[in-house]
Amino acid sequence: MSTVAILGAGIMASALTFPVTDNGHQVNLVGTHLDRDIIDSIQRTGIHPELGLKMPENVTAFQLEEAEAAFADADVAMSGVNSFGVDWAGAHLATLLKPGMKVLSITKGMQADENGKLTMFPDVLRAAVGEPLASQVTWSAIVGPSIAGELAVGHDTCVVFCGEDQASLDELQQMWTTDYYHIWTSTDFIGHEVGAATKNIYAFAAGFADGLLAKAGKENDRYRMYNYGAAIFAQGQTELTQFIELLGGDVATAKGLGGVGDMFVTSMGGRNVRAGKFVGQGIPFSEVRDTHMKGVTMEGVAAIRVIGGALAPLTERGVISEDDFPLLRALHAIIVDDAPLEIPWDKFFGGRR
Amino acid sequence: MSTVAILGAGIMASALTFPVTDNGHQVNLVGTHLDRDIIDSIQRTGIHPELGLKMPENVTAFQLEEAEAAFADADVAMSGVNSFGVDWAGAHLATLLKPGMKVLSITKGMQADENGKLTMFPDVLRAAVGEPLASQVTWSAIVGPSIAGELAVGHDTCVVFCGEDQASLDELQQMWTTDYYHIWTSTDFIGHEVGAATKNIYAFAAGFADGLLAKAGKENDRYRMYNYGAAIFAQGQTELTQFIELLGGDVATAKGLGGVGDMFVTSMGGRNVRAGKFVGQGIPFSEVRDTHMKGVTMEGVAAIRVIGGALAPLTERGVISEDDFPLLRALHAIIVDDAPLEIPWDKFFGGRR
Repeated sequence: MSTVAILGAGIMASALTFPVTDNGHQVNLVGTHLDRDIIDSIQRTGIHPELGLKMPENVTAFQLEEAEAAFADADVAMSGVNSFGVDWAGAHLATLLKPGMKVLSITKGMQADENGKLTMFPDVLRAAVGEPLASQVTWSAIVGPSIAGELAVGHDTCVVFCGEDQASLDELQQMWTTDYYHIWTSTDFIGHEVGAATKNIYAFAAGFADGLLAKAGKENDRYRMYNYGAAIFAQGQTELTQFIELLGGDVATAKGLGGVGDMFVTSMGGRNVRAGKFVGQGIPFSEVRDTHMKGVTMEGVAAIRVIGGALAPLTERGVISEDDFPLLRALHAIIVDDAPLEIPWDKFFGGRR
Repeated sequence: MSTVAILGAGIMASALTFPVTDNGHQVNLVGTHLDRDIIDSIQRTGIHPELGLKMPENVTAFQLEEAEAAFADADVAMSGVNSFGVDWAGAHLATLLKPGMKVLSITKGMQADENGKLTMFPDVLRAAVGEPLASQVTWSAIVGPSIAGELAVGHDTCVVFCGEDQASLDELQQMWTTDYYHIWTSTDFIGHEVGAATKNIYAFAAGFADGLLAKAGKENDRYRMYNYGAAIFAQGQTELTQFIELLGGDVATAKGLGGVGDMFVTSMGGRNVRAGKFVGQGIPFSEVRDTHMKGVTMEGVAAIRVIGGALAPLTERGVISEDDFPLLRALHAIIVDDAPLEIPWDKFFGGRR
């Protein structure tokens, strides 16, 4: 039996403790400074307050100050923070990792520099950890359509463990596989990380249709706006596929769990969709951010800002054409310039013809 | 201004009269023998009873006996029947078409012979019309995510007019394009027809999750089964893509409106999804067909029977491998053998590894 240490006690990290403890492994779950109440609750009652579920017996909860003890004998070290915590997590992992550990990250997304150069979060973590340690551990990540609570209650969930070291992927797959948690492995790290980052972008746009219906007073009409949503989804898939190709991933990844599957589940609801609905209702994004969803973490919005912001320099450098990524460009204008919602239909799918 | 004659007055054919009459064209809408009440209603009150909407002024409704007059001066002839009426429509079009007409079909799907050879419905129509007439008209079809009522009430809808004759496609596009009906054209007839046929298949599977939740008494639980649905959707997209490739279409079609877009909208609801939900509840398909959905047209089920039935002979001939299309094979067993619902997760995405 192995020991897994997780940095971050949010719902996704915590849900992942269910299948691995079902297989008899031990988990040390370490809260960040933002997770104090969660860890308190687990220590006192066993209940994860955000998941609304009793945690498995084999999970031991630790406050951040005890991280060193929690990671001391771990075989697997997980980064369980969201994309906003990646720099923080990297700095902490630098002190917690030991040679030989298998790092498994659930932090998805990309950072961009001022030239539009995009870096996947696992690489950000790796850089923060630094050499020689970064090369003395293996790096893997979990991607694919996985709503945390559904996994925690044992509903069938299919994901991909991706990374560069197949032997680590095989071991991690074996540790986590149950009759409800179905795991594929892939060495297309880039394609899967790009898919994971960009699907949040298009989930934001998935909220527009309901907002438009609400604005028009047609929320209870017989006819919804699924045609509109489907066109957005198909253009999203088109742009996601192009992004994977652009960054050197395997385009076949786009049609599987880490591409269209993850975009589908993310479009079904959640915070990004809710923010998009406000924009569909005609509310400027700055007001959505500062009033209606004040303080709410929106990874899709962050991704639009970062990846969408890279499009201008990439276009200027001739890496992409002005006609590429029309949907993301429109979303970026909404987020950054408070532009009104106007879908550039004519530019979709390579332009009308 | 042009005249469009449509054979079939169902909801999709009737919805398509809205954008084209908005552009000032005239439509002669001819009911089949199944559409008598619809035509009656339009003639008496202007209301299409199934759409629940008043038809445009420029639409004239005809009973089947008046078809010849309705088609006499038409520039565009439409086949507006569903996949069950394609042989019937072909026989009638053979007498109604005239050289120079542009045929535009909304009938989507494929027929299979006993060797597994699949023929697209536009080709079935063409064969029924016969030479020399079949070559004296042009053949185009409408595909993409389009719920009829949404189009009729003017919600943004993006579709593809596909066919072999680009000049006809350009003319038809111009006739139908409005500020809410956005049309692309494509000469990838095969890819688009395969996408249109196969998406109904996976819509049936999209109903399983809700059925499983209902069966478990968890319909109102906090946690749904979107992970399950997303995995089905991603495998559906994988199989749809392989089908397009197998039949010689352009795989790029899979990521656009005629592939993933159409599958998305079809998975959001409708008769195929409803039938799948019954199966998810544990009801044998024969009982769903004969009791719960007796007499209801289910194009997805028909497609599973036809296309799924082609898999065995195609495998025997070595055209595909036994490991290909695991989801469709499982659906075929449910429909034809009353097999219980068991998702072959291990075979998804090229097999677990």
